[in-house]
Amino acid sequence: MRKITLAHGSGGSSMQDLIRDLFIKNLGNPLLNKLGDSALIDIGDKKLAYTTDSYVINPIFFPGGDIGKLSVCGTVNDLAVCGARPRYLSLGIIVEEGLDYHDLERIVLSIRYTCSKAGVNIVTGDFKVVEKGGVDKIFINTAGIGEILKGSRLSRNYIKPGDKIIVNGTIGDHAAAIVMARGELRFKSRLFSDCAPLNSLVSSIMCRGIRFMRDPTRGGLATTLNEITPSSGYNIRIDESEVPVKESVRALCEILGFDPLYMANEGKLVAVVSSRVASKILSLMKAHPLGRNSKIIGEVEEAKDKRVYLKTRIGGTRILDVLRGEQLPRIC
Amino acid sequence: MRKITLAHGSGGSSMQDLIRDLFIKNLGNPLLNKLGDSALIDIGDKKLAYTTDSYVINPIFFPGGDIGKLSVCGTVNDLAVCGARPRYLSLGIIVEEGLDYHDLERIVLSIRYTCSKAGVNIVTGDFKVVEKGGVDKIFINTAGIGEILKGSRLSRNYIKPGDKIIVNGTIGDHAAAIVMARGELRFKSRLFSDCAPLNSLVSSIMCRGIRFMRDPTRGGLATTLNEITPSSGYNIRIDESEVPVKESVRALCEILGFDPLYMANEGKLVAVVSSRVASKILSLMKAHPLGRNSKIIGEVEEAKDKRVYLKTRIGGTRILDVLRGEQLPRIC
Repeated sequence: MRKITLAHGSGGSSMQDLIRDLFIKNLGNPLLNKLGDSALIDIGDKKLAYTTDSYVINPIFFPGGDIGKLSVCGTVNDLAVCGARPRYLSLGIIVEEGLDYHDLERIVLSIRYTCSKAGVNIVTGDFKVVEKGGVDKIFINTAGIGEILKGSRLSRNYIKPGDKIIVNGTIGDHAAAIVMARGELRFKSRLFSDCAPLNSLVSSIMCRGIRFMRDPTRGGLATTLNEITPSSGYNIRIDESEVPVKESVRALCEILGFDPLYMANEGKLVAVVSSRVASKILSLMKAHPLGRNSKIIGEVEEAKDKRVYLKTRIGGTRILDVLRGEQLPRIC
Repeated sequence: MRKITLAHGSGGSSMQDLIRDLFIKNLGNPLLNKLGDSALIDIGDKKLAYTTDSYVINPIFFPGGDIGKLSVCGTVNDLAVCGARPRYLSLGIIVEEGLDYHDLERIVLSIRYTCSKAGVNIVTGDFKVVEKGGVDKIFINTAGIGEILKGSRLSRNYIKPGDKIIVNGTIGDHAAAIVMARGELRFKSRLFSDCAPLNSLVSSIMCRGIRFMRDPTRGGLATTLNEITPSSGYNIRIDESEVPVKESVRALCEILGFDPLYMANEGKLVAVVSSRVASKILSLMKAHPLGRNSKIIGEVEEAKDKRVYLKTRIGGTRILDVLRGEQLPRIC
């Protein structure tokens, strides 16, 4: 009998197949079918963004964050990259009987702090306890509602040849920090997750020339770029030597045989912007604390085979495909 | 060290303490503090209801429903009892590696069917897979957005002495069906969960005379009534002999030492209505397929000690308190 595997939750190709063949096929409707980071819904004369994510990260505390911080940032970022101002979050917590009250309190305080930093409120919630072994410590779901910012008009359909691809800093930091936090490697590092709410960065750069944004979480930058190409209709070419990666992250990836381009991020966004405004947006990003290491890493090409190409560090070119299988389970 | 226990998720007094001392204390804001079934938020000139619930029921398939149907009904009902027309749901699914694809498909088809029955759409979703043992089969979170119906003006503050308490049918059916489905008892029964979307029933009765509604899930009717009294400021008196309970449910409760008044429901609502419109609302409810066994079970009293009193079947009177401890874990 066919079974669900970890790869079905990886963000990669197995998950995309499952989402298409099971979820879209059966639950599909015009809003869901767009598969954006958020659904865009009209309420009266307002446009709202609406999104949800479950957080199952292991370990629940890690350098640079914890499951509480992550569960606010992840949902805030899904709203922000759709051009929305995040406003209202729901919070669904499931814990295992026997969890330390103190750990739960630390997580709630972290949610509080991150909400205040992101300017959002938890407005509704649910708390469930299951028997010991029914769940691994604590899982959190947040859903979020944002108001689409005035002047924001983002869609993969607006992407044009010549557009620049910008990322707001080093990639792979989150996944690398989680690998280290799991303690399976016997050396020390000073890796921190990049987990952060991106809404203030987004509102500092929002302008007409931004065509599309997405946050490269599960599946990493490579998978996110591959989600952009099919509906834009064009190719993307990335210059590997321009992609910012911390030396420590690169070293860890070499040891483990991972590719930073597929490593999850929790405080990064990829923006596709008109070449006309690219340098202006780059300087605005660099002026923001969460964008100091922003770089233009590639561009949209005229060619229409809808693939992502990587100009490698040594000068060759290869197709940069979507993640196959599962790199790191429970990364978010 | 203090630990989280199953009672903290029961819907009863331990959970209410935790919600007050941990969640409201740290995450509190005017919308959350109301602790309604949904938060009411203003978007332009529209008023929305917003709610969330996680579903961890065991077993995932049971007579009368499954975790998929439940995860739509539960959230639809939380919106409906706030006087909202449920519109948009988010769906967050977490499954264990190794789950049968066929089981997941059955659940998705059940979500599809229930959504179409309730007239709502899944507009955004998330799918996570954790390693075997990381979660017991499948947990689902739904959040939901509804539009407050015109003319709906519900609040515990509008409750007045003389108001009638109506329930739309037999209580305890859901919890009783789950107990039987767990197979720990060695006799057969024909108990079915009452799991159903209540929004069409609610819209068929909505009028000015309805003061307040709530769906008595975890903690049952007794706990729900106890959530109404503090902010209404008045007492409630319930006549036990008027509370509809199926004979089979009553028999099961007697065997297990349970009280139907504390048993969870998933297709029931409690309405507090003006005495002026009570009989009209009762007949409207009885005319609806989900309200055929509706009954007026009690009324709001002048006295102000904010307690729920039960006139027992044998003619005495006792205080009907909130659920203490945990009756049945993973009932929803």
